[in-house]
Amino acid sequence: MKVAPKQPSRNVEAIIRGIELAKKEGIELIVFPEMAVPGYLIGDLYDDESFIHDVESYTSDIVQATQGIAVAFGTLSTNQGKVNRDGRIRKYNSAVIAQDGELLRTVHKTLHPNYRYFDDSRYFHPSGELAREMGFELSNFLYPTKLNLEGKKVSVGFMLCEDMWQADYLDNPGKSLVKNGAEILVNLSCSPWGWRKNDKRHRVVKELLGDLGRPLIYVNNVGVQNNGKNIITFDGASTVYDSSGRVVLQATPWEEEVVVFDRALASLYGNNEELERPALDEHQELTEIYKSITLGLGEFFRGNNITRAVIGLSGGIDSAVVACLLEQALGAKNVYAINMPSKFNSQSTINAAEEVAKALGINYATLPITDSVELTAKELTYLKFERSEFQGELTSFMLENVQARDRGSRILAGLAAKLGGIFTNNGNKTEMSLGYSTLYGDVSGAIAPIGDLWKGQVYALARFLNNEVYRRDVIPGSIISGHPDFSIVPSAELSAEQNVDEGKGDPINYPYHDALLRELVEYRKNPETVLHSYIEGTLDETLRIPKGTVAGSFANAKEFVDDLEQKYHALQTSLFKRVQAPPVIVVSKSSFGYDFRESLGVADFTRKYIELKAEALK
Amino acid sequence: MKVAPKQPSRNVEAIIRGIELAKKEGIELIVFPEMAVPGYLIGDLYDDESFIHDVESYTSDIVQATQGIAVAFGTLSTNQGKVNRDGRIRKYNSAVIAQDGELLRTVHKTLHPNYRYFDDSRYFHPSGELAREMGFELSNFLYPTKLNLEGKKVSVGFMLCEDMWQADYLDNPGKSLVKNGAEILVNLSCSPWGWRKNDKRHRVVKELLGDLGRPLIYVNNVGVQNNGKNIITFDGASTVYDSSGRVVLQATPWEEEVVVFDRALASLYGNNEELERPALDEHQELTEIYKSITLGLGEFFRGNNITRAVIGLSGGIDSAVVACLLEQALGAKNVYAINMPSKFNSQSTINAAEEVAKALGINYATLPITDSVELTAKELTYLKFERSEFQGELTSFMLENVQARDRGSRILAGLAAKLGGIFTNNGNKTEMSLGYSTLYGDVSGAIAPIGDLWKGQVYALARFLNNEVYRRDVIPGSIISGHPDFSIVPSAELSAEQNVDEGKGDPINYPYHDALLRELVEYRKNPETVLHSYIEGTLDETLRIPKGTVAGSFANAKEFVDDLEQKYHALQTSLFKRVQAPPVIVVSKSSFGYDFRESLGVADFTRKYIELKAEALK
Repeated sequence: MKVAPKQPSRNVEAIIRGIELAKKEGIELIVFPEMAVPGYLIGDLYDDESFIHDVESYTSDIVQATQGIAVAFGTLSTNQGKVNRDGRIRKYNSAVIAQDGELLRTVHKTLHPNYRYFDDSRYFHPSGELAREMGFELSNFLYPTKLNLEGKKVSVGFMLCEDMWQADYLDNPGKSLVKNGAEILVNLSCSPWGWRKNDKRHRVVKELLGDLGRPLIYVNNVGVQNNGKNIITFDGASTVYDSSGRVVLQATPWEEEVVVFDRALASLYGNNEELERPALDEHQELTEIYKSITLGLGEFFRGNNITRAVIGLSGGIDSAVVACLLEQALGAKNVYAINMPSKFNSQSTINAAEEVAKALGINYATLPITDSVELTAKELTYLKFERSEFQGELTSFMLENVQARDRGSRILAGLAAKLGGIFTNNGNKTEMSLGYSTLYGDVSGAIAPIGDLWKGQVYALARFLNNEVYRRDVIPGSIISGHPDFSIVPSAELSAEQNVDEGKGDPINYPYHDALLRELVEYRKNPETVLHSYIEGTLDETLRIPKGTVAGSFANAKEFVDDLEQKYHALQTSLFKRVQAPPVIVVSKSSFGYDFRESLGVADFTRKYIELKAEALK
Repeated sequence: MKVAPKQPSRNVEAIIRGIELAKKEGIELIVFPEMAVPGYLIGDLYDDESFIHDVESYTSDIVQATQGIAVAFGTLSTNQGKVNRDGRIRKYNSAVIAQDGELLRTVHKTLHPNYRYFDDSRYFHPSGELAREMGFELSNFLYPTKLNLEGKKVSVGFMLCEDMWQADYLDNPGKSLVKNGAEILVNLSCSPWGWRKNDKRHRVVKELLGDLGRPLIYVNNVGVQNNGKNIITFDGASTVYDSSGRVVLQATPWEEEVVVFDRALASLYGNNEELERPALDEHQELTEIYKSITLGLGEFFRGNNITRAVIGLSGGIDSAVVACLLEQALGAKNVYAINMPSKFNSQSTINAAEEVAKALGINYATLPITDSVELTAKELTYLKFERSEFQGELTSFMLENVQARDRGSRILAGLAAKLGGIFTNNGNKTEMSLGYSTLYGDVSGAIAPIGDLWKGQVYALARFLNNEVYRRDVIPGSIISGHPDFSIVPSAELSAEQNVDEGKGDPINYPYHDALLRELVEYRKNPETVLHSYIEGTLDETLRIPKGTVAGSFANAKEFVDDLEQKYHALQTSLFKRVQAPPVIVVSKSSFGYDFRESLGVADFTRKYIELKAEALK
């Protein structure tokens, strides 16, 4: 099911429609995902008691619709007269189980994720605490629900999402449910898409069921939810596992779908044939990233009732890829591209921009920023302050940023308003990490479609778009690294120092820096471990990059250390830009925003790092 | 102690310096605050194992310095070979207790706050879970530490911050410690400033100690920490309570200070005279808000190694107040104010801006935006797209935003760069709530000093600055509501519709809307409860505003309901601006950022609201 966050009325309509459909099909039990009524990532709306009670009030509407069928759905429930540990009304992340118009059980989630963008402990009371309060051992408190299925009573153990990802917790809800008689397990989830997540899930379930010997039905939602800074996509892919953890049935990923399991439950015990799974290769990764971004983009526009997108099309790879993604999500007629050359832009990139626009059939315009930048430079240069001796100096670096802000805040923002649309931020994760971007310039935009992709991934997605989506070169080969026609290096083109016709580009060594920054951001490593690997001669391996990349990038240890320190510093100090950056569509294991939570300020180098540095520079 | 987040080397130096000083003074036990070594609000740096081990490595340095003295300090500790519930290395928020060069105990925090900007469960393993894993009841697991004090063994019960705010939790660490023999309790805290927080603390401690009959020493840090979106100040105010919860000794709030309790511990049992406390009146509230903001501002600039501030000075109340706060935090010579009039700015506000600058002695300049806005309007109007029939239209509303962006992104950002400084965001919380501001215009800036103050509070702070801080009218009376000279209404002055000389201003009824929005944002109420109070005729009371305000604001129920719905909608849809807004200095019980966590999208009105509306409009 597709869940609309914060819209219980729409979700309950969909649930009841699903129940009616299931009844017609003669289905005995239909299961909806975790938090199917309110949505899951709704932030502190969980603190709004009126909203909470409104959500709860829908439970009886759904229960009334269960004449002749068993239904389980995720919603929140409260405990009147009791408080959460924040003093607010006590809330549970619950599964409600009903049959024949009767509410049979409300089961609460036991294991609460508090990593990435999950804040379960902020909102929900865990069932373990409730058990303790009532004087129960948790393992006796979690027991299955008896449903009338296939003409007999079947004990079904319901649990929620994290409850089956129990390896790092002290409690194992699935085990308790089986100990207390569950013949079959059902997991209601709201589990975001992530590369290889489903593969990991299959492994986790296999291990769990290997111990428990029961079949499991996993139900997940599709759609898009967010926390303000991160746009998070859900790929559904609800799955039936047999008692040895083999995949017996799976819903089409990314699709809203009623999947019917139409064999006897008994068939789930024993030797089932396992469904084939997609290969975990780069092609599959790009396919999923492409689906996640286009779904996220489409929903973002629909959710804001906006149809038109404005994009600054520079002729570089980033904006070319975003233009394609917009065209896929919104249709060519809704995409308005504009090229805004200054005196530093080469004819090659201007041509590339126009080629992309033509190939995609999107609206296209050109507007040079020369006059305006000149006016700003003049005004800022000659401005004098009363009572002040210090007047400052306008350097060429500052003029680079004037150009970027002129494009972002003056033209793109004004144009988006004029067209009744929004404009995109075309930055990639490498730039975002280093702050290689201008606040109110290219940091601006309503959404960052590729803000969670490293530069190398942007190139890979460009190749995927040409080869798999369009099956022609909508993005010119001249700007795709790795393409035989590649001739235009990546460049911001904001000064003569970044002249692409002279092969001058960004001061970033993408193959190495992508991997370094991924290590620091996504793997949460410290310069200490990077330097340690460097000294050991194993850094290429550690960073998963081709052998020789590090050696080919630095002439000596001093160059390496200087670069490492400069990049670590840039990663931290550029947070002030990310604080003001738009939401990012999440495709990595750790995206900027409330997924990777940062604080302003620079951390000490560790004492071990300082020792290693002395050793390296000896 | 002032704690520098992410800088263990500096913090440990301060701790060891404190220990040496204490030894010289013949002190027997010195206590440092919670997380004194790494800082507390350091985000996902807690996931960086090298950093974590570096922090832990300092424990032995500190323990070595405890010859001849007992020391307790807050830091983090790990449990090698065990995992947190996120699969990462297991971490505890701990107090280390050492005496005479020996580490006596490491005590872990039991109660983990997960509200506001606190994410303890994201990072730390609770001691209750550890106890359970080891087969203990928590109440037997928490036991005091024996220290040699006053020539005998004294059992001291150490706990951390939330451990004493236990009312809403199932466990009571203080009670367990006393049950297990604690003669005196010590609480290491990292507890942010909040209006009336210390008063609440005194009440909480009084209730706790009333039950337990033991004295308590509360140690808190001073300084500023942040989570990227919120700048949070700490007011110290470490306190000694006697066994009935009376305040016997208190450190000067907001100051780093070694406070010496130099009476026998036995004196803490029995009847002590209670210290006088400041009155909880508006004057005290403004004093504390003023201290919190100037401290937060000062530390923000110092932390970023920036001395100069640029401010757009419009002649309105908001920027006038921010200019004063900057002058107080940085000194007049470091503040650069600029007035940027368009054809819509009245001479009265231009004069007011100049008056403020003169009164404060800050640098001042004027730069009209007429030429640039004209150029932008012309360019945007005549821009045509290839392949497009739809070209849009540039309305006067869009031109308002062009002006704001011209000021924010073109002039202020360029000027800040030229001067090597940063510019402030002068928005108040009322504007932020409604999105009555322009993205990349007045939403921009590096920090929002008054972003957590409602408009009415901004006026109150203006009066406080004139009357208490400057003791003269640095802010002209003509722009201070409530002042006898008040004549200039609050206005954005972006169009002829906002002409202050004709008495036309913002489309906001501040006395009512401040209170309405506070109800929705800070008290987490829903339009449903607001409408309910309106129907009952008790809304003035509910919103804590003068009787008659609501009746005087709306001619009939329809006007009221339309306004309520429009404001609730604006509050939600304007999140896209707040996502890109700078960090706010926190002074309320719920500030925008990661304190009040929001998600994009509009919530359903509750079904009860829809009923009430039908009733109201009948």
